Amino acid sequence: MTAPKYDVIAIGNAIVDVMAPCEDALIEELGLNRGGMTLIDTEGARRLYEAMGPAREISGGSAANTLAGLAALGAKCAFIGQVADDQLGEVFSHDIRAAGIDFTTPARADEPPTARCLIFVTPDGQRTMNTFLGASQFLPPAALDETAIADAAVLYLEGYLWDPEEPRSAMRRAIGVARAAGRKVAFTASESFVIERHGDDFRSMIKAGLIDILFVNESELATLTGEPDFEAGLAQLAPDLPVLVATRSEKGAVALMGGIRGEVAAEPIAKVIDTTGAGDLFAAGFLSGHVKGESLENCLTRGAVCAAEVISHYGARPEADLQELVAKRLG
Amino acid sequence: MTAPKYDVIAIGNAIVDVMAPCEDALIEELGLNRGGMTLIDTEGARRLYEAMGPAREISGGSAANTLAGLAALGAKCAFIGQVADDQLGEVFSHDIRAAGIDFTTPARADEPPTARCLIFVTPDGQRTMNTFLGASQFLPPAALDETAIADAAVLYLEGYLWDPEEPRSAMRRAIGVARAAGRKVAFTASESFVIERHGDDFRSMIKAGLIDILFVNESELATLTGEPDFEAGLAQLAPDLPVLVATRSEKGAVALMGGIRGEVAAEPIAKVIDTTGAGDLFAAGFLSGHVKGESLENCLTRGAVCAAEVISHYGARPEADLQELVAKRLG
Repeated sequence: MTAPKYDVIAIGNAIVDVMAPCEDALIEELGLNRGGMTLIDTEGARRLYEAMGPAREISGGSAANTLAGLAALGAKCAFIGQVADDQLGEVFSHDIRAAGIDFTTPARADEPPTARCLIFVTPDGQRTMNTFLGASQFLPPAALDETAIADAAVLYLEGYLWDPEEPRSAMRRAIGVARAAGRKVAFTASESFVIERHGDDFRSMIKAGLIDILFVNESELATLTGEPDFEAGLAQLAPDLPVLVATRSEKGAVALMGGIRGEVAAEPIAKVIDTTGAGDLFAAGFLSGHVKGESLENCLTRGAVCAAEVISHYGARPEADLQELVAKRLG
Repeated sequence: MTAPKYDVIAIGNAIVDVMAPCEDALIEELGLNRGGMTLIDTEGARRLYEAMGPAREISGGSAANTLAGLAALGAKCAFIGQVADDQLGEVFSHDIRAAGIDFTTPARADEPPTARCLIFVTPDGQRTMNTFLGASQFLPPAALDETAIADAAVLYLEGYLWDPEEPRSAMRRAIGVARAAGRKVAFTASESFVIERHGDDFRSMIKAGLIDILFVNESELATLTGEPDFEAGLAQLAPDLPVLVATRSEKGAVALMGGIRGEVAAEPIAKVIDTTGAGDLFAAGFLSGHVKGESLENCLTRGAVCAAEVISHYGARPEADLQELVAKRLG
């Protein structure tokens, strides 16, 4: 087998984040799910946008953010996701391509518009996300570039996108393509509500050995395993997963790989500005080391460095030179 | 005469800024006018956007930025400007209204799209602006809310918008409405190229006493007066202007009002991140004091504080609490 063209190809939501600072009182007043991700419809988007302060728009989407981190770290990446043929679709497409990521999924001509996520950031840096999925949920299996998937060392899938039907079919098909080509499949659980709705799918895929690398946070691990105890949750999943990475916010992260256990503390930072993208960039850092065959410890440190960078400013895409930060930290 | 409904009503470009950091080499490679503002067409916008790195979108427009500062400082404001009926138009409209500014100019249904300004920010914080004017240049005189103009203490006009024909007619009409209602007219020269093209208009309006407050920077002052010497330029204009404010970047600013001269140094800041909006926010600070009848010195200090805030982060709209910053500085 020749070296793959891509280190990582990802399928994910193609979203533009609309971000604004807000006071805690507004979160309560609007009845938002503080710190979580909630799906909203057109009317919900109108209502929340009206209540939002002056905002800024920065491309987002969980898997797309991870790729932006990977590309910044020198990995060769491609993205598959659905935008509409509109201005926000142009913004998303420009930003991901400008990050050096191949993105060729054709824009969708019809309504609904490109996905946006209305993100309210409270003074503690916590983000409360409200996603209007728009075009993103209509990614059809036919839009997959199967040649590219077969030619990527890792296929990275975003759990959020397991919820809508068409992208779920597309991702199932992509897993088949990657497997047939002897590639690895990485999956990020994204959010507990996804696991509540589709936990049986995930558990059976894990049992069937279809997932090589799983990213979860503490609460997703508990939801997925039914184990409120963190260690018990890890112990339950580990036998069926070649690589299991569990992030714990300010408590750092734990990874298990082939019987080896690694742990990393969160990187100290001056001030948490906006936690949007913390998990996405942790995954980016981890995978950037993993595809190069680095030690589990190095992979975890890379993850912690990238997560720390992204929460030190607004927006879920890296701004500082990640290669330099990682090089400095790993010495 | 009863107290006016608005402190300031402004007519300006309705622009969304598309901003990205870039290295100095790219400015040269693309042949950009470093530190200046250049008008670009559809093809120019396509070419530059393609060359630009991952960006963020933040509402801009010179006079609109000034109003955002004024509103943040507690002034009652209204904006008149032309967006198209598209997503960037929604972004601009949302952001200005969310800042507490009345904005009722109807969106334009046809092509071209809403204006955007592609801003390349070099490591020294200098911004190089490339503006696709789009819908903004089609602001028709009929779109003026004349009742609102007559009911504002100050009509604030943006020089950039003097260049396209329709808005120029609209602004001439607005000056007439403001004058007839006994209101003040403030004008910002915006950029030397505007003065090169329309200097005769400006000089004759100043001579005719149609402008009460003029904002210029050093190079605009030189272009307007033909005097390379700063003091000579001031001396030439001062007799015909009730208030003349000249900003000098890191050298601070000078103002002349009814024979009184005031000066202010630039506020010290930790690091210049992005100079976009420095002049706009200086004008906001100055006017916020002027409409309250504060001393020339206080008006200048307010200007310096607001300019310092906006250049300490990306984007030309204020992020910190300007009222608090001003209160702290004025004691």
